[in-house]
Amino acid sequence: MIYHVAINVMPLKDLLDPQGKAVMGGLHNLGLTSVQDVRIGKRITMEIEASSGEAATKIAEEAASKLLANQVMEHFEITIL
Amino acid sequence: MIYHVAINVMPLKDLLDPQGKAVMGGLHNLGLTSVQDVRIGKRITMEIEASSGEAATKIAEEAASKLLANQVMEHFEITIL
Repeated sequence: MIYHVAINVMPLKDLLDPQGKAVMGGLHNLGLTSVQDVRIGKRITMEIEASSGEAATKIAEEAASKLLANQVMEHFEITIL
Repeated sequence: MIYHVAINVMPLKDLLDPQGKAVMGGLHNLGLTSVQDVRIGKRITMEIEASSGEAATKIAEEAASKLLANQVMEHFEITIL
């Protein structure tokens, strides 16, 4: 069966996110001053051929930890769509 | 009230995603050959001070359409966390 899987890779909470800071400044300049604490990460979607949702999650976990996320600076979460 | 909002910005389905193609190649080289159709986008999280969830969504929509997403090449979806 084919599973549609999304992996969200976000910077760790304790780390600065200068890209997010810059975007927050841009939003404030556009008048959206109620926006705070912007953080920017990646979202990767993929199709995984697997026998079960669990097996698909395992493959996605392997993909995330081996290639997509740098776990020194980022954490990831996996959802089946 | 403060709402935690996530905005997912993904490349449109009809467009090529060369970054996703490259990542798919990398995953295949790692032995994860069951992975297909990798697409890579952005995930932006923020805190929005607003009177209601609807108002927060409206602000996030404005942020996405004015600054975060290029709607010629990308579409976005907003979720309140």
